[in-house]
Amino acid sequence: MVDVPQLVEQARQGRPRAVARLISLVEGASPQLREVMAALAPLTGGAYVVGLTGSPGVGKSTTTSALVTAYRKAGKRVGVLAVDPSSPFSGGALLGDRVRMSEHASDPGVYIRSMATRGHLGGLAWAAPQAIRVLDAAGCDVVLVETVGVGQSEVEIAAQADTSVVLLAPGMGDGIQAAKAGILEIGDVYVVNKADRDGADATARELNHMLGLGESRAPGDWRPPIVKTVASREEGVDEVVEALEKHRAWMEERGVLERRRRSRAAREVETIAVTALRERIGDLRGDQRLDALAERIVSGETDPYRAADDLVDGLTNGG
Amino acid sequence: MVDVPQLVEQARQGRPRAVARLISLVEGASPQLREVMAALAPLTGGAYVVGLTGSPGVGKSTTTSALVTAYRKAGKRVGVLAVDPSSPFSGGALLGDRVRMSEHASDPGVYIRSMATRGHLGGLAWAAPQAIRVLDAAGCDVVLVETVGVGQSEVEIAAQADTSVVLLAPGMGDGIQAAKAGILEIGDVYVVNKADRDGADATARELNHMLGLGESRAPGDWRPPIVKTVASREEGVDEVVEALEKHRAWMEERGVLERRRRSRAAREVETIAVTALRERIGDLRGDQRLDALAERIVSGETDPYRAADDLVDGLTNGG
Repeated sequence: MVDVPQLVEQARQGRPRAVARLISLVEGASPQLREVMAALAPLTGGAYVVGLTGSPGVGKSTTTSALVTAYRKAGKRVGVLAVDPSSPFSGGALLGDRVRMSEHASDPGVYIRSMATRGHLGGLAWAAPQAIRVLDAAGCDVVLVETVGVGQSEVEIAAQADTSVVLLAPGMGDGIQAAKAGILEIGDVYVVNKADRDGADATARELNHMLGLGESRAPGDWRPPIVKTVASREEGVDEVVEALEKHRAWMEERGVLERRRRSRAAREVETIAVTALRERIGDLRGDQRLDALAERIVSGETDPYRAADDLVDGLTNGG
Repeated sequence: MVDVPQLVEQARQGRPRAVARLISLVEGASPQLREVMAALAPLTGGAYVVGLTGSPGVGKSTTTSALVTAYRKAGKRVGVLAVDPSSPFSGGALLGDRVRMSEHASDPGVYIRSMATRGHLGGLAWAAPQAIRVLDAAGCDVVLVETVGVGQSEVEIAAQADTSVVLLAPGMGDGIQAAKAGILEIGDVYVVNKADRDGADATARELNHMLGLGESRAPGDWRPPIVKTVASREEGVDEVVEALEKHRAWMEERGVLERRRRSRAAREVETIAVTALRERIGDLRGDQRLDALAERIVSGETDPYRAADDLVDGLTNGG
């Protein structure tokens, strides 16, 4: 058994191995998961969580890396969670395993973590928020969550951020892709990366049109900015940070940040509760109770709905 | 509100509109679903449920239709449930809406029902067994469940049959498709349809090889037969019926039928219980309890796991 309070204390002191260990504990659904989560709870809430999503090839890792550099210059501690559903990395991927991020690997003010799918539906949506909590509790001022924006599960992960950044690049048909993936609805800040390439202005215009940014909005509504960058040369990155800080300030002023975090927490509790209930039922496979109910259904004594009620009542009365 | 006992009585008497109405009630998750299921329970268990699955184009509907003819000749009442995940038909599709089946539409001893996906994962896996129960309670001796064997959900529906028939046709690369879809594991009887075409023998041989039918088996084990048919000319269909009856007799002798039905009932109860629990949690959206828990998580007073425990306890103590 791991000494959780000691590990949490070491993580607070900025020891990367302790942070890595804690993330492994929470993403691996270890028996100590609950103990870890309970220990982290009072230490969380300080980090500003930024989600970055976009199709493969738009330069997410490069942009993330450039943002890390910018935040480090401002003296912030930064956590990076790179979520890649197609990655062969196991959940136990090492800190600093991303080549793009290697320049930050030796920086004690930066934690980098890769996370691959857990092999089951909703796995990442479940594991990512726990890892974010660890980075938050470890004292990160900013947590950047980088996801591949292709499917529903990535959109869900992006929804776990305080601010969502959607990245596009010229000439990739991203506009249509973005619309399909539903990521147009989740962006608080849009970045057209590789803006030195042909078509960058067209992509920005198309995006501007699709987002209806030309239309009038109610006063006080957030108007997602479109920032052009060349992340590989760190061009435009300060403007992205500026846009992020503006969005954060806007959210704080209006109580939006608090509301987003609450609704996120509510969804998280739901997911955990449903998973827990499902596991309780799963535990009953081969159990006498379920067998007995099944027998009564086959013999026509009861029907599956009444049997399910019996099962649920059994679970909920401490069974 | 529908008079359920009257409707059930009418269905027992063989009135197709009553059967159709009952199926609509159970597949539409109507408020009377539980009443209907309770009324049906003591009337079920008499029908022999045969699943037919295979890729599009192998002639499932033609084979199903030929099987209906064969069973009708033997004086049996037959129910047909045609499950098509890609079908534009709504759940309320009319009896006799399948063109292929039109020859049986006016036969009072045959019920035909199409069922399309309910638009959510696991929807069919949930609705199909209820529809089978209606056909069973209505006095069908045989229920044929025809599904497109392409995905996991179809395999699950096939698993709800007493006997599963996997259909193939020559020259369609079905062997590989079958292996991919995992349907090789579910077939109790294999049919190579369109056996008048080139390659029928090769398909049967390939299948024989893949199934390891040449290998020795323990005495008493079921050896899935491979039957060649030309369903459009009703050739080989009597042999299929014979194979089905053999499988049924084999299952009954060894208690396999009872075991299959029990394990099916157990899975069904699980599905219903999980759905019910999920709905209970879903009902809490916007509920004060969930909001209060979310607020306490955001403020760091509690963690999502403890909050989920509280939520589950609240549900299970009659909350």
